[in-house]
Amino acid sequence: MTTGEHMEQSFLCHRPKSEYAYAYDKEHIHLLLRTKRNDLSSVFLRYGDPFEWTTSSDKSLWVYHEEEMHVRYQTQDYDYYFIQVQPKTKRLQYAFMLYDKNDVYAFTPRGVISDHEKMRDMPYFKFPYLHESDLHETPEWVKDRIWYQIFVDRFSPDQDHTFLAPDHPVQNAKHYGGTLKGITHHLDHLIDLGINGIYLTPIFLSPTAHKYDTTDYFQIDPHFGTKEDLIELVKKAHIYDIKVILDGVFNHSGFFHPFFQDVIKHEQESLYQDCFYIKKFPVVNFPLNGFGKPINYRGIPLNYETFSFQPSMPKWRTSNPIVQNYLLDVVSYWIKETDIDGWRLDVSNELSHDFLRQIKKRARSVKKDSVIIGENWDESLPWLMGDQLDSVMNYELSFVIWDMITNQISTERFIEIVTHQYIKTPKSVLENLFNHIGCHDTIRIKTRCHNHIDLVKIAYLLMFLSPGTPMIYYGDEIGLEGEHDPDNRRLFSWDQATWDMDFHVFIKRLISLRKLDNNLFNSECQLTHQHNVLFMTKHVNNRKLIAIINPHGHDQIISTKSIEGSYRDIIHDQMIDIHDTIKMKGQSFHLLFKEDL
Amino acid sequence: MTTGEHMEQSFLCHRPKSEYAYAYDKEHIHLLLRTKRNDLSSVFLRYGDPFEWTTSSDKSLWVYHEEEMHVRYQTQDYDYYFIQVQPKTKRLQYAFMLYDKNDVYAFTPRGVISDHEKMRDMPYFKFPYLHESDLHETPEWVKDRIWYQIFVDRFSPDQDHTFLAPDHPVQNAKHYGGTLKGITHHLDHLIDLGINGIYLTPIFLSPTAHKYDTTDYFQIDPHFGTKEDLIELVKKAHIYDIKVILDGVFNHSGFFHPFFQDVIKHEQESLYQDCFYIKKFPVVNFPLNGFGKPINYRGIPLNYETFSFQPSMPKWRTSNPIVQNYLLDVVSYWIKETDIDGWRLDVSNELSHDFLRQIKKRARSVKKDSVIIGENWDESLPWLMGDQLDSVMNYELSFVIWDMITNQISTERFIEIVTHQYIKTPKSVLENLFNHIGCHDTIRIKTRCHNHIDLVKIAYLLMFLSPGTPMIYYGDEIGLEGEHDPDNRRLFSWDQATWDMDFHVFIKRLISLRKLDNNLFNSECQLTHQHNVLFMTKHVNNRKLIAIINPHGHDQIISTKSIEGSYRDIIHDQMIDIHDTIKMKGQSFHLLFKEDL
Repeated sequence: MTTGEHMEQSFLCHRPKSEYAYAYDKEHIHLLLRTKRNDLSSVFLRYGDPFEWTTSSDKSLWVYHEEEMHVRYQTQDYDYYFIQVQPKTKRLQYAFMLYDKNDVYAFTPRGVISDHEKMRDMPYFKFPYLHESDLHETPEWVKDRIWYQIFVDRFSPDQDHTFLAPDHPVQNAKHYGGTLKGITHHLDHLIDLGINGIYLTPIFLSPTAHKYDTTDYFQIDPHFGTKEDLIELVKKAHIYDIKVILDGVFNHSGFFHPFFQDVIKHEQESLYQDCFYIKKFPVVNFPLNGFGKPINYRGIPLNYETFSFQPSMPKWRTSNPIVQNYLLDVVSYWIKETDIDGWRLDVSNELSHDFLRQIKKRARSVKKDSVIIGENWDESLPWLMGDQLDSVMNYELSFVIWDMITNQISTERFIEIVTHQYIKTPKSVLENLFNHIGCHDTIRIKTRCHNHIDLVKIAYLLMFLSPGTPMIYYGDEIGLEGEHDPDNRRLFSWDQATWDMDFHVFIKRLISLRKLDNNLFNSECQLTHQHNVLFMTKHVNNRKLIAIINPHGHDQIISTKSIEGSYRDIIHDQMIDIHDTIKMKGQSFHLLFKEDL
Repeated sequence: MTTGEHMEQSFLCHRPKSEYAYAYDKEHIHLLLRTKRNDLSSVFLRYGDPFEWTTSSDKSLWVYHEEEMHVRYQTQDYDYYFIQVQPKTKRLQYAFMLYDKNDVYAFTPRGVISDHEKMRDMPYFKFPYLHESDLHETPEWVKDRIWYQIFVDRFSPDQDHTFLAPDHPVQNAKHYGGTLKGITHHLDHLIDLGINGIYLTPIFLSPTAHKYDTTDYFQIDPHFGTKEDLIELVKKAHIYDIKVILDGVFNHSGFFHPFFQDVIKHEQESLYQDCFYIKKFPVVNFPLNGFGKPINYRGIPLNYETFSFQPSMPKWRTSNPIVQNYLLDVVSYWIKETDIDGWRLDVSNELSHDFLRQIKKRARSVKKDSVIIGENWDESLPWLMGDQLDSVMNYELSFVIWDMITNQISTERFIEIVTHQYIKTPKSVLENLFNHIGCHDTIRIKTRCHNHIDLVKIAYLLMFLSPGTPMIYYGDEIGLEGEHDPDNRRLFSWDQATWDMDFHVFIKRLISLRKLDNNLFNSECQLTHQHNVLFMTKHVNNRKLIAIINPHGHDQIISTKSIEGSYRDIIHDQMIDIHDTIKMKGQSFHLLFKEDL
């Protein structure tokens, strides 16, 4: 076939058991087909049960259906045709029937068939059986969350205490006084804000303030409080339907973990020598700094594996049964003892798939509706097929939002990338993604925006309008700033005179709007643009949401003929009549809502 | 970019954790990149440890490597560039640097970057950590097997017994007298043939001769013998390094399984009601035929799920703990009791991924070097990522061999399809694939070839030269024929006067050649063609194998200038001098071997 005249075969793509073919729920299968953009006039799915199929020449015996697929996504190069099917017997075989101006083709696992005679005996793709046990059975509550991340040492001291005076920047090795009781004490702040999920950075015994180098997984660090304090916090939070998850640091221990210390001391005699990746004895023992922490500098040849090249973080060998049992007991212990609602797994991409499956099974076995969220910075589909993680920290979204608001990419490119993210994420995962635009590992969003608060608002709006669950990094809501670690971990200020009240009101409004109609906010957007101004449109039943966002510095006159009508601007809470054009000032936005009667 | 002048971006493809990026063994990662055919002048991999990377403008601090990738496969539309890397820290991040005549581009997870400035901070693909526990640790012995499949009832009766007189065709519901003792008795036949692996179709108690409808998984069907007979067979086989695997029918039970009978009887009161998929009580109870088997006819609305629409095969609900424990106990019981070497799993594609993982773990826990082979007829990569199956029955290869020898496809098309099979199969899997060109579920290869024995030889040659492990369906080696089930299950003949001795010698020769140099035979072929004549070339160290195969009816004169030289034709065992041309008669072949000194 030659370009332009006939269908372009090399653009076709379909992959069984991937984002192109997955079980959405226990009755439905989603199928996606990639074709060259605008190449075909229509696509039909031919499908049925593989065992009911007959290839008899008597057409009346052919027991299959044909149903039209529709273009769900369009990128620069491709069209993506989508269909949801409900196979009666849970078994499915299928092929794609492609129509262009000239002819019909069948796209099969063995390529394109254009000979009509051969279509009678052609091979088919299969989804052999839809197993409930292979599904994402992420708890229902997850998709409705608005998360709030707390770096415990820096949020609030106990009721009768105050923070240490802050350093500039704050130090990771120093405790400033934040505690679990402090969080419970200030739960009113979170309730008032409207969030309904708390993610705590690590709280177990460790020499640092960030506590990603655990000494004892079964003890809450005394700087932060006691097990009873956590029980109290979770209990009170649950009263207000606020879920609480902890940070599970299972990729590595801390240098002072007794198992590792035992290996340093007893070497080959240690029961725990295979709990880590020791390359040679004696283990290089690093000098300690004033906080009892091994001094971390490059250049010393480590003779054991670590997270990154951090001597203070020896990597767990999670295939070892002692390690497995120990860490899985940690997973279940804190759920059982304190009723937490799940775990955010640190460095989850460097854990084995096998161990991740065990973590999920263990967590679910003690609390059926607990959640497991991973810290995967990159493409995560292999971790999100239903067996391992429920969700991941959605850095891919963070990157594209950051890139657009800092003028690294055009609005057109933003749309292209976000569309690809929709395409490659099963819908059973998309609504549960853990979205964020800043956390303890990144520059604060306000600092990233060079303190342009309108840009910060746009960044938050983009996150709140994205499928998935938005997360607020503690202090963002009051205008906290911060460069990279450790400056992004400044002390929260409880003196409201220091707060950016306008921004606080804005965030509260976003949260309340989203909670009022999470189905609408958590749905996929249709994305278009005009002169670098972004349109995000959502439509669920009779409710319609249109965001018009100008993330760039220049004013723009935008044609709005296609959306003429009367809307409520639900951020500014006023009615607005849209006519032929609208002027969008630089770094401005409208969030328009309409309910058709 | 426009076609023809610059690189064609839409042809690029790379997917982390797939056939494009996988751990080959505990030290090496394989990476593949798809580009448009002949589009680039060269491709380099830029790679290193994600935490050692620095994007300082001081280039001397950039700690990464660049290494050239090479075209390993070429298809009609694409080039596939390959490289094997060995990341020192087991962590890998990478991007592809693409060179065409005009420029260099970087291919990254966020697309192509052509702006050289932006390459400094570009995103990278990651293979976060190479975990041994996620590897395919398929036992070493698997790749060296030459399998022999035995349909037990039809192979051999006990020493002092004879088969019942055969029917035409033989009946599935009737036992003709084959036994385990019969196999042990005739082990000399298999040793003489040279095979070193036996796959037995099911042997547990069931009303049929095929026994895919199990009544008792812990009892060998008395028609076939006893547990002691199996122990004896395995023990004797092991003496000759012959491995033995059983058929695990875990997708469904038989109608007469006591659990299912209990459900029929006690309905909602039955302990076992959730062991199956019962839609409604009372369970439709089918009339039995003369063999005590429920009559199987379409049209009766089944009210429980089954394999296909077979009332005699109720589908197990393998997510139920009773079922799981029961079937996993079956997996380990027979390994422990009789020392079998693994299982071939019936209808494995319709088992849940979760249960498959458990089966593999259970089998490995009782015998570290046991194997799990699946019956997947279609694309199987999602089952072959290291956590579930070691191998599958390679129907994709069967189909393409059948299609070529029956003139459905050209030699060119054969090459295109086989090349795609190489591309999409991780090399850790390819060498262990369970190849076959006929089994109890298909037409006998001889019948498929309309008794043209030269074609049968070509089919066997194609299988023996393919990466993976070849399987001989019992009786093929003596010239047995047979149409579809049940005719493909005829009685083996022990009267050597009835054997096709020429073919028997041919198969023995193929087997002995392959065993002499399995590394060479099990390697990937370079495939080319001339006038529909196929060239398969293998090259390992200094050994070279060239097969010239004319699968079609017409004689062809072939140019052989490029392979001029003196070879041994190792099938016909004679020296042969290759000059400018060679005449290949219809349905003929040469298998040429050369060792460079």
